[in-house]
Amino acid sequence: MTIYSFLDDYSEGAHPHILQALVASNMVQQAPYGEDAYSYEAKARIRAHLGNPESQVFFVAGGTLANLAMIASLLRPHEAVIAAASGHIVLRETGAIEATGHKIITVPPVNGKLTPDSIRAAFDANQQFPHMARPRLVYISNASEIGTLYTKAELQAISQLCRERGLLLLLDGARLGAALSADLNDLTLADIARLTDAFWIGGTKVGALLGEAIVIPDPALAQDFSFHIKQRGGLMAKGRLLGLQFHELFGPEQLFFTLARHSTVMAKKLGDGIVAAGYRMSANIETNQIFPILPNDLIAFLKTSFSFYVWEKHSEEESVVRLVTSWATEEQQVERLIAAISGWTAT
Amino acid sequence: MTIYSFLDDYSEGAHPHILQALVASNMVQQAPYGEDAYSYEAKARIRAHLGNPESQVFFVAGGTLANLAMIASLLRPHEAVIAAASGHIVLRETGAIEATGHKIITVPPVNGKLTPDSIRAAFDANQQFPHMARPRLVYISNASEIGTLYTKAELQAISQLCRERGLLLLLDGARLGAALSADLNDLTLADIARLTDAFWIGGTKVGALLGEAIVIPDPALAQDFSFHIKQRGGLMAKGRLLGLQFHELFGPEQLFFTLARHSTVMAKKLGDGIVAAGYRMSANIETNQIFPILPNDLIAFLKTSFSFYVWEKHSEEESVVRLVTSWATEEQQVERLIAAISGWTAT
Amino acid sequence: MTIYSFLDDYSEGAHPHILQALVASNMVQQAPYGEDAYSYEAKARIRAHLGNPESQVFFVAGGTLANLAMIASLLRPHEAVIAAASGHIVLRETGAIEATGHKIITVPPVNGKLTPDSIRAAFDANQQFPHMARPRLVYISNASEIGTLYTKAELQAISQLCRERGLLLLLDGARLGAALSADLNDLTLADIARLTDAFWIGGTKVGALLGEAIVIPDPALAQDFSFHIKQRGGLMAKGRLLGLQFHELFGPEQLFFTLARHSTVMAKKLGDGIVAAGYRMSANIETNQIFPILPNDLIAFLKTSFSFYVWEKHSEEESVVRLVTSWATEEQQVERLIAAISGWTAT
Amino acid sequence: MTIYSFLDDYSEGAHPHILQALVASNMVQQAPYGEDAYSYEAKARIRAHLGNPESQVFFVAGGTLANLAMIASLLRPHEAVIAAASGHIVLRETGAIEATGHKIITVPPVNGKLTPDSIRAAFDANQQFPHMARPRLVYISNASEIGTLYTKAELQAISQLCRERGLLLLLDGARLGAALSADLNDLTLADIARLTDAFWIGGTKVGALLGEAIVIPDPALAQDFSFHIKQRGGLMAKGRLLGLQFHELFGPEQLFFTLARHSTVMAKKLGDGIVAAGYRMSANIETNQIFPILPNDLIAFLKTSFSFYVWEKHSEEESVVRLVTSWATEEQQVERLIAAISGWTAT
Repeated sequence: MTIYSFLDDYSEGAHPHILQALVASNMVQQAPYGEDAYSYEAKARIRAHLGNPESQVFFVAGGTLANLAMIASLLRPHEAVIAAASGHIVLRETGAIEATGHKIITVPPVNGKLTPDSIRAAFDANQQFPHMARPRLVYISNASEIGTLYTKAELQAISQLCRERGLLLLLDGARLGAALSADLNDLTLADIARLTDAFWIGGTKVGALLGEAIVIPDPALAQDFSFHIKQRGGLMAKGRLLGLQFHELFGPEQLFFTLARHSTVMAKKLGDGIVAAGYRMSANIETNQIFPILPNDLIAFLKTSFSFYVWEKHSEEESVVRLVTSWATEEQQVERLIAAISGWTAT
Repeated sequence: MTIYSFLDDYSEGAHPHILQALVASNMVQQAPYGEDAYSYEAKARIRAHLGNPESQVFFVAGGTLANLAMIASLLRPHEAVIAAASGHIVLRETGAIEATGHKIITVPPVNGKLTPDSIRAAFDANQQFPHMARPRLVYISNASEIGTLYTKAELQAISQLCRERGLLLLLDGARLGAALSADLNDLTLADIARLTDAFWIGGTKVGALLGEAIVIPDPALAQDFSFHIKQRGGLMAKGRLLGLQFHELFGPEQLFFTLARHSTVMAKKLGDGIVAAGYRMSANIETNQIFPILPNDLIAFLKTSFSFYVWEKHSEEESVVRLVTSWATEEQQVERLIAAISGWTAT
Repeated sequence: MTIYSFLDDYSEGAHPHILQALVASNMVQQAPYGEDAYSYEAKARIRAHLGNPESQVFFVAGGTLANLAMIASLLRPHEAVIAAASGHIVLRETGAIEATGHKIITVPPVNGKLTPDSIRAAFDANQQFPHMARPRLVYISNASEIGTLYTKAELQAISQLCRERGLLLLLDGARLGAALSADLNDLTLADIARLTDAFWIGGTKVGALLGEAIVIPDPALAQDFSFHIKQRGGLMAKGRLLGLQFHELFGPEQLFFTLARHSTVMAKKLGDGIVAAGYRMSANIETNQIFPILPNDLIAFLKTSFSFYVWEKHSEEESVVRLVTSWATEEQQVERLIAAISGWTAT
Repeated sequence: MTIYSFLDDYSEGAHPHILQALVASNMVQQAPYGEDAYSYEAKARIRAHLGNPESQVFFVAGGTLANLAMIASLLRPHEAVIAAASGHIVLRETGAIEATGHKIITVPPVNGKLTPDSIRAAFDANQQFPHMARPRLVYISNASEIGTLYTKAELQAISQLCRERGLLLLLDGARLGAALSADLNDLTLADIARLTDAFWIGGTKVGALLGEAIVIPDPALAQDFSFHIKQRGGLMAKGRLLGLQFHELFGPEQLFFTLARHSTVMAKKLGDGIVAAGYRMSANIETNQIFPILPNDLIAFLKTSFSFYVWEKHSEEESVVRLVTSWATEEQQVERLIAAISGWTAT
């Protein structure tokens, strides 16, 4: 019997409509390096959500590339990044930001997120001229690495502080779709474009084969950014592959939002089922990642039919596990997992 | 009427068999980050050509990423690269190698290539300890940027010199398929694995959507290389996309070779037709790029039906143009282009 | 009246014997770039303390340069440093290490120092291949940034752990003289050469105009290090200036030890006097920095005659101040400061 | 008998007045990191020559550090430097500029120098957006690496071109003193401050123990430059050592100019004597380096009493040698060398 995976949101290929578009356009000759018709139209479609026709949009293959190219472009060598100690650029990118020469000043996360207080404290503690790298950019992720999200009020407060202190604000949107489609969300892409200096919209985790759309609302900040994409190895000869996927994700079906919504609905259903079965969560269910606390024996039993990460030890007999749903999660597998949990009894 | 493009070898999407494989496997859940079944099998298929079961194979999205990650991994900070002044890393990668901290020592190309003499001269001229960066790696491309190729004797001579001088040899194979399928070629992948320290097999220009296969024959040299791919932003969440394409390219059909062969056959046919029409070439026709010298009026006429690059001025009335054929080039378009040239008369 | 400074240990020029040697040798022609006779002899004098005639010694102008050149030379790009969050490379070098491309993993200091437990925890928490930079070097300072020192047992324990885990151990010796001349010290230079992989002996803070001596005991690890000094801008044309100073510091007078001893004796005397006057210390007096807790009114009074840093708030009425003694501290100024403190009465 | 050296202009220590100032000020307590009184006054003295009271002046220990910190501060990562293939940053700094991430585009030198034509050609040949690093800074040295100098007309022409093309102009002044004191010179420091965007005034080769003064006339371009000095390891704890030396060099005696003048006068005398003895020069005698063509037998004879570099082979029987004079060159040694050459007869 096949093991069904709740390991992550990139275990399958692409949404079928994306593959169909690739097949349909395959033999049409197009200009290379992102100068193809699909990329142009995809950028227009994204821009239509941003409330700012001047916004610059760029496509790259992956999230680490997006983060490192953006930060390398936005900062001078002596300028540093403020990020949560749990941030993706801190823990999951093999020192990619430092490899471009920049220090990251870490602060303890609060519910997976940065707050004005934590940013202010880091800023104030790094002002000894010229012995300390100058804090210049704040990096946040929405949804965060533990699936929590920023409300509009939270993002506004951070944005205001950043502007007062001369800090750029960069939002990593690897799971921005899940965040924007969450029940708790009150942000729009236009809000984010207004409140940040740069952000990216993840495609890979919402049904694309690969691809992230970088948005820099102020053209002056985006100046020469294409050089940075190329210099860091991110300019694809067949840029059409990126353009076409975002063309589909932001097409009339608005796949970006509907696929993301499916992932959060499946997470909610799964989480509710687990709670109904009598188990607790170690964190709020906000987007498409849930963190139930389960007995180790139950975990062992579930592993015979499902794959997922055991996140951390909770007690001698219990662990926190991470279950991730996606655009492709089958509802019947969610039901099967709930049934397995509900039906299990300790021996 | 549509303009048919001879601009480059990446104007179309992917070979249909690759797309079919993507569609067929799309909903199969796979492990991320290159740990999928297709990548494993694709590496085995490539390794079967290398004559060395210890060879390490890695997939990345593009050529600049391949070059910069390899060089950053292989060199210490004070070590430099020797390359032709016409090399891709010198002229077409926006300083990507220097951005990883390494100097490139350039030498004049001979027919687009490096020679033992030019390498030796650069090596000898950069030995003033410790005021000069230490030459440590030789970078060559096969086929070269102007479509010429290295014979086995040439590559052996360079390889021998490199080993005598303690120089690593890296071969950029963006168009390795075209080189290996050329009439003049007498090299195999196994020869290259034996004579170089690292090379990469281009997929993008031979019918993949994207993707290059990096080969490091000596596992000791490949140590920790995956960290470098990740650090430079090259580790794809859906590594299956790269694995599956090389799985197809090196499958029973040996698409890698047959598609590349098509490109060189089309170039030969096109070149022969142009010569038969009475025009000269500015360089030998060796792979899938040809460089005829044409009257400017003829060029203007051709531009109404075809797209291609005007490469350089040849005389007041003539220019060199570059025509590139590919895995997708339609033979009837080659014939149409020959006919247009043959039928044209100066007014 | 002049304000006497206890701000730091580099407020004066150089010990007069060093200046005399500069004057005496001034017009002797010498080879440049550290190939002068004084540098050779100075290295031999240092090597005589190391218990290892193979040890490699290099001179550079300053501590940040020492740290960044050593780390850049010792690590590959994907390798990271473990350091205390209070470490000089973390807080006082403007991101110099990150500017060479390397991540620093910080751990909370224990009494200003790293411990085997904190190193082990950082090592274990950074093992997710290949998503995390690989921990490869441990950075410690002796004396630490708050003036505490490593005992032989502490250094042995750290050294043993590093060797078990494949970690290099680098000791920043900006104030190594003060550490080695402290009452609590039981380490020798030979111990340090045996227990670490690289360290440096600070000259600037023990009576030189400038200069630090880098020691790499294993010649294999020191290979090509001179290239790194040059590449980072640290190779001085008149290397004689560095060589001559260390020649004096490690000459028959052993100025390095006697000058450092003076600084710790003065600190002890000052600390004892302050304690005798009824005030507490916020940290043990171990080397040449002391951190008394004083009433704010007393601090204001002292500022009229002495300069020093107010380090941190202790309570509404009290602050911690930092007082630094040096090779040049005049005993009568220490006595004057003690008298000022003892004689003060709150109004 | 002692061998007298004409190897370079940094074989001795410092001018005695500089040593005297060091001795006299030695025990005065001063603020660290360049905040000392001598540095402030030295900057004012330099600024008085610049015709621009807004000019920013910074001191660093050496030339490579000056070049790398300036270039790293002035450029964004995708921006490149244009330099002569013979430039110091190209051939004698171990890839220091590339180690900060920047490409150097080299052009053939004309009499050791750049020209508007060579700059324009390099600029035009590197405009393929975004595949080529963007040319953004022109690096020249005055005097050049072969001792030639820029006239005011030459520098004006280069400056004008740079401003038309949006290129910054950086002048490496390692031997600026020799250039400004040459017979052919018609430039002043004020001219250079007006015509360039950044330059540095070498102290090491004109009688200082060490030290170069960086000038950035436009404060906006100098913004945050102190961070860069610190980040690259160039901020000296005892900045007084640099400040005091420039304080003397630009004091009432104007040692900077008088010492440099001595070096060029000695070179002229030496060159004239060699020409009078019947030998040719391979380059004009413009500053303090001369390049006579001498018989190999004569060279062997001279080597018994003098040290100097054999620069290159001229014919089977003759070589070009390099003779460098300095602030410290003794006139009687010049006469002795002329006499040795004049008196020699081939056997």
